[in-house]
Amino acid sequence: MAWLRLSINSLLLVALAGLCGPLRDSAVMAQDRAVDPLPSWNEGKSKAAILEFVRRTTKEGEADFVPLKERIAVFDNDGTLWPENPIPFEVAYSLDTARAMMTAKPELKERPAYKALAEGDLAALGDNHLKLLMELIVATHADQTTAEFDKSVAQWIATARHPRYQRLYSDCTYEPMQEVLRHLRANGYRTFIVSGGGQDFMRVWADKVYGIPPEQVIGSAFKLKYDLVDDRPTLRILPEIALIDDKAGKPVGIRHFIGRTPVMCFGNSDGDQQMLELTTIGRTPSFGLIVHHTDAEREYAYDAHPKSSGKLVTALQAAPRRGWVVVDMKADWKRVFADPK
Amino acid sequence: MAWLRLSINSLLLVALAGLCGPLRDSAVMAQDRAVDPLPSWNEGKSKAAILEFVRRTTKEGEADFVPLKERIAVFDNDGTLWPENPIPFEVAYSLDTARAMMTAKPELKERPAYKALAEGDLAALGDNHLKLLMELIVATHADQTTAEFDKSVAQWIATARHPRYQRLYSDCTYEPMQEVLRHLRANGYRTFIVSGGGQDFMRVWADKVYGIPPEQVIGSAFKLKYDLVDDRPTLRILPEIALIDDKAGKPVGIRHFIGRTPVMCFGNSDGDQQMLELTTIGRTPSFGLIVHHTDAEREYAYDAHPKSSGKLVTALQAAPRRGWVVVDMKADWKRVFADPK
Repeated sequence: MAWLRLSINSLLLVALAGLCGPLRDSAVMAQDRAVDPLPSWNEGKSKAAILEFVRRTTKEGEADFVPLKERIAVFDNDGTLWPENPIPFEVAYSLDTARAMMTAKPELKERPAYKALAEGDLAALGDNHLKLLMELIVATHADQTTAEFDKSVAQWIATARHPRYQRLYSDCTYEPMQEVLRHLRANGYRTFIVSGGGQDFMRVWADKVYGIPPEQVIGSAFKLKYDLVDDRPTLRILPEIALIDDKAGKPVGIRHFIGRTPVMCFGNSDGDQQMLELTTIGRTPSFGLIVHHTDAEREYAYDAHPKSSGKLVTALQAAPRRGWVVVDMKADWKRVFADPK
Repeated sequence: MAWLRLSINSLLLVALAGLCGPLRDSAVMAQDRAVDPLPSWNEGKSKAAILEFVRRTTKEGEADFVPLKERIAVFDNDGTLWPENPIPFEVAYSLDTARAMMTAKPELKERPAYKALAEGDLAALGDNHLKLLMELIVATHADQTTAEFDKSVAQWIATARHPRYQRLYSDCTYEPMQEVLRHLRANGYRTFIVSGGGQDFMRVWADKVYGIPPEQVIGSAFKLKYDLVDDRPTLRILPEIALIDDKAGKPVGIRHFIGRTPVMCFGNSDGDQQMLELTTIGRTPSFGLIVHHTDAEREYAYDAHPKSSGKLVTALQAAPRRGWVVVDMKADWKRVFADPK
């Protein structure tokens, strides 16, 4: 009976929502409890913590109610919204693009970085190769216009496939986290990416893949130079770093780009520890969450591996003291990816 | 009769809007033609150009219709939304704050910059003093936490008064431009500030004064350093520039912070020329507007004065060729400021 009453209420609310067009405050959606907003999550502490925090920060009258304007949630990208193995996907973009550059200009093979790439050495990402790798990342990001870079990324993301999953990289996002993004937005939270990856790289596809528009994507960035070229406004990407949006750079990026402290923060590595601190320490209500990669079978299992780009040691140690939710990917997630398209 | 029918429709629309709460797409407001959205503007080409552009970019079915997500308008601040005379208001903040610092620490008077300030020399802002002035600007912005700076600006903006108008600086905004901001937002445009001024300075009061939230305020910025101090997340402002958001820095700021090209751009000086170019050249539909300060009686009259911080020479020359609307403040604005509060 209670269920029936709830459904009729929901129908009325949906009808009203249809009449009024899109509502700024999606309170209507929030009240529709008949549908599980996180179906890819197993029941447990992690799922309950997310749902309960969203409920009490979005229900007027609750002590922890957060006004609409302040409902900001920040997400790391690599390892939090999609995998970062066997190599971060933006590095895969750089290596694929550098290979294409070698085909077009064979003389590049004489340079050590391209030579290592041609011989397959760089795939291992060994410490000795970090400098060579950086050279290829800069070469495939800078010394071109923003329009050229955007076009190149768009072509890659539409065609390149993940070596293990054999599907488009953009089809490798974590479905449980996509559900969290959608659930937060349905409750009036604005979702931002705050990533160590390149913001220009992510902005090309983040709206389509995550529903996150360019102005809500913060990441590392190269310096730019504006000029009129042939009387056309042109932004050229310089081979100099403007911001490394990682570790202590993440709170800096949040202050520069958002100018408010988030209410919720989602990460997966020590590189996210500082923005988890910024979001949660001394602030009520606030929410911090770490995705712990514990599932070698369906995805990857790692934390303290010294060479992992997503090393998780100090943040994991701090989690209990800071009250951060630690998601056990293997136990907490019913499935990792959506069915292939 | 037509007027009566229109009024009844408007009443119905207003009633419906009240029923449905705030609408994301304020198409309802846009259709309410009974009320002049720009009452502080005299009838003429400038006013007509603004209204007509908004109409045809927000009416579905028009060739120039712009989807909601892409409706972005950028505004310079000093000289475009409020005056920049007798000195830019943020410089006034710096001088007032430096004076207070001298009272607290009299030994500062031994330094040339503070000595000049104490003797009243800096008020003239002569070329010889630019270096000294910069020293005071850095001293009153950097070497403190962001929380300390925000508090200091909040206190100043709540109390300091403009020397000529004898009212709070925040009561010196141009009412005709406030009307443009409101009209654009009522039609689904998001309004951003893109200013040479400090973004941290503006973000303290821009939401209250202009209805523009912190995440839509882009400006010049100092570098920041994140640390846990006494186990509290702390951002310290360093005496080093991160971005000068002026001239060619404005298109750079727009790419970094918004990641989309605006559809409308409003400025008043050569410092805005590059973002006017970025917005309008080769892009349809697009809109560029320059506020020309022609009204010495009610405000200030200036353009080519070599020492003016709002020098307007090359942008004014380019305006006819680029199709930018040039607002003649004296002729186009019925009033400059709202009545004092």
